[in-house]
Amino acid sequence: MPGRVGVWLVGARGSLAVTSIAGAAAVRAGLAEPIGLVGETPALAGAGLPPLADLVFGGHDVAGTPLAKRAEQLAQAGVLPATLPAAVAGDLAAADAEIRPGATCDDGRPQADTVERLRADLVAFRDSNALDRVVVVNVSSTEPVAAPRPEHAGLAELNRALLSTTDVLPASSLYAYAAFTSGCPFVDFTPSTGARLPALHELAGSAGLPYAGNDGKTGETLVKTALAPMFTARALRVLSWSGTNLLGGGDGATLADPRAAASKTESKRRGLEGLLGHPVDGRTHIDYVPDLGDWKTAWDHVSFAGFLGVRMSLQFTWQGCDSALAAPLVLDLARLTARAHQAGCAGPLGALAFFFKDPVGSTEHRIATQYEQLCAWAGGLG
Amino acid sequence: MPGRVGVWLVGARGSLAVTSIAGAAAVRAGLAEPIGLVGETPALAGAGLPPLADLVFGGHDVAGTPLAKRAEQLAQAGVLPATLPAAVAGDLAAADAEIRPGATCDDGRPQADTVERLRADLVAFRDSNALDRVVVVNVSSTEPVAAPRPEHAGLAELNRALLSTTDVLPASSLYAYAAFTSGCPFVDFTPSTGARLPALHELAGSAGLPYAGNDGKTGETLVKTALAPMFTARALRVLSWSGTNLLGGGDGATLADPRAAASKTESKRRGLEGLLGHPVDGRTHIDYVPDLGDWKTAWDHVSFAGFLGVRMSLQFTWQGCDSALAAPLVLDLARLTARAHQAGCAGPLGALAFFFKDPVGSTEHRIATQYEQLCAWAGGLG
Amino acid sequence: MPGRVGVWLVGARGSLAVTSIAGAAAVRAGLAEPIGLVGETPALAGAGLPPLADLVFGGHDVAGTPLAKRAEQLAQAGVLPATLPAAVAGDLAAADAEIRPGATCDDGRPQADTVERLRADLVAFRDSNALDRVVVVNVSSTEPVAAPRPEHAGLAELNRALLSTTDVLPASSLYAYAAFTSGCPFVDFTPSTGARLPALHELAGSAGLPYAGNDGKTGETLVKTALAPMFTARALRVLSWSGTNLLGGGDGATLADPRAAASKTESKRRGLEGLLGHPVDGRTHIDYVPDLGDWKTAWDHVSFAGFLGVRMSLQFTWQGCDSALAAPLVLDLARLTARAHQAGCAGPLGALAFFFKDPVGSTEHRIATQYEQLCAWAGGLG
Amino acid sequence: MPGRVGVWLVGARGSLAVTSIAGAAAVRAGLAEPIGLVGETPALAGAGLPPLADLVFGGHDVAGTPLAKRAEQLAQAGVLPATLPAAVAGDLAAADAEIRPGATCDDGRPQADTVERLRADLVAFRDSNALDRVVVVNVSSTEPVAAPRPEHAGLAELNRALLSTTDVLPASSLYAYAAFTSGCPFVDFTPSTGARLPALHELAGSAGLPYAGNDGKTGETLVKTALAPMFTARALRVLSWSGTNLLGGGDGATLADPRAAASKTESKRRGLEGLLGHPVDGRTHIDYVPDLGDWKTAWDHVSFAGFLGVRMSLQFTWQGCDSALAAPLVLDLARLTARAHQAGCAGPLGALAFFFKDPVGSTEHRIATQYEQLCAWAGGLG
Repeated sequence: MPGRVGVWLVGARGSLAVTSIAGAAAVRAGLAEPIGLVGETPALAGAGLPPLADLVFGGHDVAGTPLAKRAEQLAQAGVLPATLPAAVAGDLAAADAEIRPGATCDDGRPQADTVERLRADLVAFRDSNALDRVVVVNVSSTEPVAAPRPEHAGLAELNRALLSTTDVLPASSLYAYAAFTSGCPFVDFTPSTGARLPALHELAGSAGLPYAGNDGKTGETLVKTALAPMFTARALRVLSWSGTNLLGGGDGATLADPRAAASKTESKRRGLEGLLGHPVDGRTHIDYVPDLGDWKTAWDHVSFAGFLGVRMSLQFTWQGCDSALAAPLVLDLARLTARAHQAGCAGPLGALAFFFKDPVGSTEHRIATQYEQLCAWAGGLG
Repeated sequence: MPGRVGVWLVGARGSLAVTSIAGAAAVRAGLAEPIGLVGETPALAGAGLPPLADLVFGGHDVAGTPLAKRAEQLAQAGVLPATLPAAVAGDLAAADAEIRPGATCDDGRPQADTVERLRADLVAFRDSNALDRVVVVNVSSTEPVAAPRPEHAGLAELNRALLSTTDVLPASSLYAYAAFTSGCPFVDFTPSTGARLPALHELAGSAGLPYAGNDGKTGETLVKTALAPMFTARALRVLSWSGTNLLGGGDGATLADPRAAASKTESKRRGLEGLLGHPVDGRTHIDYVPDLGDWKTAWDHVSFAGFLGVRMSLQFTWQGCDSALAAPLVLDLARLTARAHQAGCAGPLGALAFFFKDPVGSTEHRIATQYEQLCAWAGGLG
Repeated sequence: MPGRVGVWLVGARGSLAVTSIAGAAAVRAGLAEPIGLVGETPALAGAGLPPLADLVFGGHDVAGTPLAKRAEQLAQAGVLPATLPAAVAGDLAAADAEIRPGATCDDGRPQADTVERLRADLVAFRDSNALDRVVVVNVSSTEPVAAPRPEHAGLAELNRALLSTTDVLPASSLYAYAAFTSGCPFVDFTPSTGARLPALHELAGSAGLPYAGNDGKTGETLVKTALAPMFTARALRVLSWSGTNLLGGGDGATLADPRAAASKTESKRRGLEGLLGHPVDGRTHIDYVPDLGDWKTAWDHVSFAGFLGVRMSLQFTWQGCDSALAAPLVLDLARLTARAHQAGCAGPLGALAFFFKDPVGSTEHRIATQYEQLCAWAGGLG
Repeated sequence: MPGRVGVWLVGARGSLAVTSIAGAAAVRAGLAEPIGLVGETPALAGAGLPPLADLVFGGHDVAGTPLAKRAEQLAQAGVLPATLPAAVAGDLAAADAEIRPGATCDDGRPQADTVERLRADLVAFRDSNALDRVVVVNVSSTEPVAAPRPEHAGLAELNRALLSTTDVLPASSLYAYAAFTSGCPFVDFTPSTGARLPALHELAGSAGLPYAGNDGKTGETLVKTALAPMFTARALRVLSWSGTNLLGGGDGATLADPRAAASKTESKRRGLEGLLGHPVDGRTHIDYVPDLGDWKTAWDHVSFAGFLGVRMSLQFTWQGCDSALAAPLVLDLARLTARAHQAGCAGPLGALAFFFKDPVGSTEHRIATQYEQLCAWAGGLG
């Protein structure tokens, strides 16, 4: 058993973090069924995952709104059941007490100082709660694509740069750095850079720590990775795959910035070509539509050629609640990564590709095959 | 190598048969790419399938319209490329010369006589074309659900009944009986009864013959079997799955008869419950819409609960050409079944579940798993 | 000014009635904007409608659940804002006190007795509340199609039959009869028979009373009547129009009975042919899908021929909350009919066709033209 | 009767022009029904339009592909019936003989020279064919949005600039200028500038010539202008309206240039706000998807608030053939504008708003009202 496990959420006051914390409490207390939690299904029963009851939540955030208030907002929006915030008020308060100010990249100090502060927060959380391990999970807003820097190529260069520069790493990578130097595994649920730099890969390796990511697969891409293999298996030729994603809420607002959206659409595109084995026409749009709130609607149009070149099409519309889709995956990932850490895994956890749009350590995008690989790997841990 | 293989199509003048024959000729002659032909993909390259060039076509049909005319009609409807009927006129004429009158169930004679005539046609086709084997493939119109009869329970009883009754077997089963008593494997691409009677299973076993079926998976169900496992793997709870299928063409007209439609919707429903592991609300409609011609449109609406019970939905619309979707599967099935016959397989070919809505010899409905099983099995044949 | 107006709801404890009562109170109190209320738009500002504040609610129902409890259920389902039931508790209690037991058709007594009881309830409501007039609005569940009876042909025959028989009228028509003999206008928001019998038309005429109906146009049909005229104006030829309606909630359960659904689909079909000027292929399905609750989803598929016969298609998906769509129309109809009564209109109010799938007194189904007619007529009242 | 009418197509070798010419010939010859031709419906029977048989086609184009070859391509793509190109070969050849080289903006000569050449082509066409009048219709590719120039403000300034500059007018406006100075009415079926400059308005007025435009309403916008008034009439509040248009073919390729697309999306957006009376969230995408050829697919998602603020949605998918949708409108516009010219109308023809996304001379966008206005105006001409 992995023992008591800390789940340290970067972006701990966001909708996704609050839904994860409140939802874990609800399921633990028997107030909700474990819908959406892969870790609670028979397929993973033998993996030896830490029970939901053994998870302790904390995190970083640059915002200060109390979790209780955020939970109320989510209940009004229909993301949480109306009576849940009151029912799990104690759990929310406990987590709230463990949230520390997040990193901002422009405070004018060398980033080594920032890392040191983040590191100290992690260590204090682990120590004061007597945790066996802490998994850091990035659930903050999507960053713009980070510019490549020569110092990213190796750990020695990076360490030097951190001492003297204020911007060698994007925020997501600062958190990964802090996690690895604190002995904590790292999971990136966003399309941001996170641990995906050679220097950080080297750091994780030398520290014997596992990491996972990137970009949780919760909607359009989830469906794509179920459908694209069907075309391939049947030797049907996909000619174009076009998609439009309408998002409200915080993620939508962030992605209204074309630089952040670029990070997301690129992550989506890579997967599709991997699935089909060839490039296809068609664009993917991400539009910010404020009135949709926490809900998102994706429409995809696939045109394909069948026997003798006859043109046909498939369209789908996915309408889901972003936080409700993502939160159980955050809990699953925290538990699986904690278990992997306990089992001594280090480096990228390709077996967790099932959860991600752009998986580290794996080139497999087919959801069914990812699921088999997950089950086999988790079975081997038990 | 399975040598020269006969493909005997029951319903040989129907849209599906004509598309299969013309399409095989087109691909063989390099006039069309092998889109939709699973048997031509690298995954099955080692299976030792008979080449398309070694297939010889014949069949039964109650109708008399020449294949050349049927091909012209299909070209006008956009199912075949405009210039194809002329380009493969020789192949169509050759197949036309091998078509014999089909069985009608109400000619007042004992069914043993009918079987004997069908059997003679099969043997003559094999002998006169010096074929190594003949695969009988039922691509005729869907029958009404056949009433159960006590004589179906065993071969001895069935043989007695055939001698004295005119209706103990539906037409599809007469063809299966004739196939098995002629040493031919049988494939049922329709939801009709075909070989699915204990007496016929016994017959196939004693003759050492393989058979496959039922009901080619070409549209709505194909998509369902790609999507349903996604919900299951993610522990999302499907609450209802509703579908409407709009069909023109011959199949639509047949299915406008509620008794035939019952056979089809039942076959669809069985699969969905198998996939999800529990019954779900929602009906499946099959509507005959003549103006759609050979095209079909399916709309499915899936409502599901996510984390904390939040309700979400997925809809898809599939727009395809029925004959173009089915024809390459007919060619794949004929080749795979011929190869299985050569390799000595007998009884239901569960490994071909990939092609069927309601597979015999398998309870697996997940398309990805079916595909793996197909590839593994075919690899073992090679 | 029409003075104080009573709104007598048949089915007063149903979702639609409760939403209407709670919603009127919310708008009156400034707790909600008047979205969906045509009577509050500038176009009808000059019609002299009774203000929402002058409406007094009562009604009949066979059920006994308190309105406050029904409102709570609707708030949990997201039909009413979470805080509304408490905020309008006084209004709900006031209406609750004015609800009387509804008519059941099988109490073994002559229907004249039942009518007399209903009539007494209406008169008592009007007198005790000092109302200038009372509009009876049928918002109860859809009835099966009523069998035609010779006594429906004239008022004299009907009056005789009511004295001696227990089933000459369906319940909806009993309410219309009671309304007319009490001096009350009648609005039928359902597809039931209601006032649509020659004998009742005669009764309304002799009493100088207006009536309106049938079957509120709230979803699929609303969209149809906006789209179909577009095809006609552009000389595009609609070849088929197919529709599937998924309904949960009370109405869905009622319509799961094919006899009740027949009444609804027939009402839908009549309109489409009227709009296009010719019959078209395609069926309309109404499916009961319990998990959808108060929500409904309609998918329509229209195939049409354009220039030179080229085939094209339009699909739409409408996802709405049934009670929220219907309730403002109930309020609009009550106010408009009260105003018509005050202005001396008698007989079917064809100018209200805008609100109905199957309008009495009008053959116009095009929503835009109906809207013009409504505005012109209402302007003439002011 | 307007007598023999010339239809001068700018972009005469494009898909739309060829479909218009071939289609007019087909209907004239009784080879096709007049589907899509508003001018052939009873509603316009009294307008005195020139018969299709009296139309004579010519035009400008910068390309040189023979019409016969373009027609073959369109037949292969399913836009024209397979046998039509041969059947109307004579009509195509006659039109081909009347096509002259189009204007290119960068030949280094003063634009006055270019105009003079275009003018001479128009006059020669009219004279040599003994035509009573010639209507110039721009059906060429969409231009980028033209930069405003001070010389556009008045005819005198413009005339001066034409003598000395090579780029004061975009190509579409050169054609309008040439039309007006040749005594020809002008119709702009594209979103390009065309006649929409104060100087050209002045020119049309002084010449007593009518003009019409802009941007034919053939798909997504057509449906929008049918649906948006429904929301308004019902007092439902549209919160966002998002759209994605997938286009292949020439128009799609042109619009892949963001500068040309800007012209189109702006024209679409103006209409929506006009329809709803307020701005709404939501973007409109136009994507070039080459494999779609002449076909286009539009998906629109509308979110709206109903009674008490409940959120609902409407989605539609429109799948149409661009040239087949537009061609009958081109014929209708040519005939109606010829008739207006004969009747002495001058300036913008607001009554033709029915045909356009961004109508000149009208602020009415509601399709039903536009249709009424068209019928009333046309009736007045007869």
